[in-house]
Amino acid sequence: MIRIIDSIKDSGFLKKLLDRSQFEFEEVNKVVDEILFNIRERKDKALKEYTLKFDKVEIDDFLVSKEEIDDAFENIDDNLKNDLLRAKENIEKYHTKQLKSSYTLHDGEDIILGQIIRPIEKVGIYVPGGSAAYPSTVLMNAVPAKIAGVKEIVMITPPNKEGKIKDSVLVAASIAGVDKIYKVGGAQGIGALTFGTESIPKVSKIVGPGNIYVAMAKKKVAGYVGIDMIAGPSEILIIADEHANPKYIAADLISQAEHDEMAASILVTDSQKIAKKVNEELKIQVEMLERKEIIKKSLKNYGAIIITSSMNESIKIANEVAPEHLEILTRTPFDLYKQVKNAGAIFLGEFSPEPLGDYFAGPNHTLPTSSTSKFASPLGVEDFLKKTSLIYYSKEALMKSKDSIIRIAEDEGLTAHANSIKVRFE
Amino acid sequence: MIRIIDSIKDSGFLKKLLDRSQFEFEEVNKVVDEILFNIRERKDKALKEYTLKFDKVEIDDFLVSKEEIDDAFENIDDNLKNDLLRAKENIEKYHTKQLKSSYTLHDGEDIILGQIIRPIEKVGIYVPGGSAAYPSTVLMNAVPAKIAGVKEIVMITPPNKEGKIKDSVLVAASIAGVDKIYKVGGAQGIGALTFGTESIPKVSKIVGPGNIYVAMAKKKVAGYVGIDMIAGPSEILIIADEHANPKYIAADLISQAEHDEMAASILVTDSQKIAKKVNEELKIQVEMLERKEIIKKSLKNYGAIIITSSMNESIKIANEVAPEHLEILTRTPFDLYKQVKNAGAIFLGEFSPEPLGDYFAGPNHTLPTSSTSKFASPLGVEDFLKKTSLIYYSKEALMKSKDSIIRIAEDEGLTAHANSIKVRFE
Repeated sequence: MIRIIDSIKDSGFLKKLLDRSQFEFEEVNKVVDEILFNIRERKDKALKEYTLKFDKVEIDDFLVSKEEIDDAFENIDDNLKNDLLRAKENIEKYHTKQLKSSYTLHDGEDIILGQIIRPIEKVGIYVPGGSAAYPSTVLMNAVPAKIAGVKEIVMITPPNKEGKIKDSVLVAASIAGVDKIYKVGGAQGIGALTFGTESIPKVSKIVGPGNIYVAMAKKKVAGYVGIDMIAGPSEILIIADEHANPKYIAADLISQAEHDEMAASILVTDSQKIAKKVNEELKIQVEMLERKEIIKKSLKNYGAIIITSSMNESIKIANEVAPEHLEILTRTPFDLYKQVKNAGAIFLGEFSPEPLGDYFAGPNHTLPTSSTSKFASPLGVEDFLKKTSLIYYSKEALMKSKDSIIRIAEDEGLTAHANSIKVRFE
Repeated sequence: MIRIIDSIKDSGFLKKLLDRSQFEFEEVNKVVDEILFNIRERKDKALKEYTLKFDKVEIDDFLVSKEEIDDAFENIDDNLKNDLLRAKENIEKYHTKQLKSSYTLHDGEDIILGQIIRPIEKVGIYVPGGSAAYPSTVLMNAVPAKIAGVKEIVMITPPNKEGKIKDSVLVAASIAGVDKIYKVGGAQGIGALTFGTESIPKVSKIVGPGNIYVAMAKKKVAGYVGIDMIAGPSEILIIADEHANPKYIAADLISQAEHDEMAASILVTDSQKIAKKVNEELKIQVEMLERKEIIKKSLKNYGAIIITSSMNESIKIANEVAPEHLEILTRTPFDLYKQVKNAGAIFLGEFSPEPLGDYFAGPNHTLPTSSTSKFASPLGVEDFLKKTSLIYYSKEALMKSKDSIIRIAEDEGLTAHANSIKVRFE
């Protein structure tokens, strides 16, 4: 079902895994360039053409109407609506702790320094359509933006062939406080948010997941607008000891594998027994699941059970992989996690499976993939804030510092910089 | 000396300014690809070849020795050394306020959620060589990394033809707490920090300014390693009223213009009188300065005095330009700055000129350029920290939430996600 590797003898799996990056396809590159160019030049007109071409539907008014949202609230299962509300509250509670305050430092009345922290004014959220239209994506992106105080949160998502958006996605957007929803997707949607069109407002930052066209478009517009990280394929790494439940481990590996064929599901364990049992469980569980074809391919491509000689070695491997999701299924998860240096999110103990984090617990599910947790962080309120420095010196304060500033400027050969200080004391 | 524009009649300058982005040169692109490939494959060997080719010097040992650092401390002017120490203290004091603590949220003993904030382990700082070898670059990049708690701060900077590094740069690195300094620059240096070579350690994040080859190399390795923002040409926008001193304004516009021919120096004022006087002052001051050729070209390319009909209009223009540096030279700067939405750093009043911030006051001089202050922030301690989420649910807690999680997962069509919850209660 899955490769089993002795960590000592690993002859390349970890390297293969760590090299698993997204390729840039020349063709995608060209298509996206053309789309962005057309949207910038021909705006709504081009947007309508691309929507017809890619989403197979003619859209006159991209804006989702109040009626459509009301309909979504009527159609949605009440339980599901309440689930989304509960999830939203949990996300809100967790993220509110991330708010940060401006600060100032005073030195008497002569020096005032500050850092002003404010929300980005306008933000665009991309939500995929089709089978990847997830209400959880909406909540995880919109709630932190709302908490940050973003004035205008715009969401775009591709319509289906009937020109509709999924009920749960509309409901999630509404309860999360999204201001406007537009039926547009793909690279053309990213272009619209970047350059603005007659109907879609230009924003300062674009966040959210998407297919390779969306990802490449985001990469290309980065710098004109801010973007969140470009996410790679999803990953889970589970550290387990002999006390873990093989059934749970198998289910969690599989839950990651169902995302797509590039997803990586890895068990690292110092127990031969667990390795064997998990492999057996995988075989049984996979057959019962809807997405078994994807799961099998994913497990074959990047699935692995790595057998180590000690828990220390298991943790070393986890730190090297720096996984997006890390589950610790051992007797003492609260001791072990402190040794973990690199991970997007850590799930502790046998009743904290990864889907709990995807939907519900509160921490963000947008996490650094492909080893980037060595330097990157989960999406958070901070991604929707920006800072400005503040500098005030009185004449007396500048007087006391002028010689130092002039000397450093002159050492750097920037004599006009030195002059800007000098003219003030001539 | 400089174009004077009536804000109402502006027929394109602001647009030209806002479109002033960095072009991607096809040739640079190819060269950088080749360099990165060679460094990854042939490591130190390629590094030595490129150093000979570009820096015109044969380097056996890239590591700057203790003796070289000691020599720098002996050779440097004592006053300058103390200036750098004072600047370092100011930077430290300002940035220490940016440190952030991990947090946890408890719901009894059943739910523990957390955000662990930790330093990135290894960071590389790029410092340009030649006439752009600035000790202030070292301090502004290394001090926040040190405060964040980065364990290993590595600095690279190209050597001169004698294989040496500027004294003030070595002294700044030493007092800022840089752990290792290597004599290597260019795209090859960025490659070395990204992939690691026999002598240069692989890092997780690379920060610091550089020429177009360095910038393109950073852009290309982004994702494998973290990078800071790719900086565009520098900018200053000064808002002045009739009470401002034209001499100071001219000096400050010029100090920005001396950086390079693409730098933008803009005065926005509601006073015709000030506009006229500043233009006269520019003519006088420019002639007295060493870098007058660069200054003249820069003022011609992107310099402007924009005359507005009111202070409100001046602020509106500033918010649209979203300048890297904003000086407010009016009678009531402390009232006005609150209306500024977008700026990298704001300098208040006539004794807070921009070079004060470049070298000395404490806030970082690495600031968002090219209107990116609409979504981006000054470099800070945060850029050297990373977060990991923590999730623990007890059996009871998961039990209470399981139906919600399962319903959302099933709405999303991710049945293996739902299964990962279900198996725990079978």
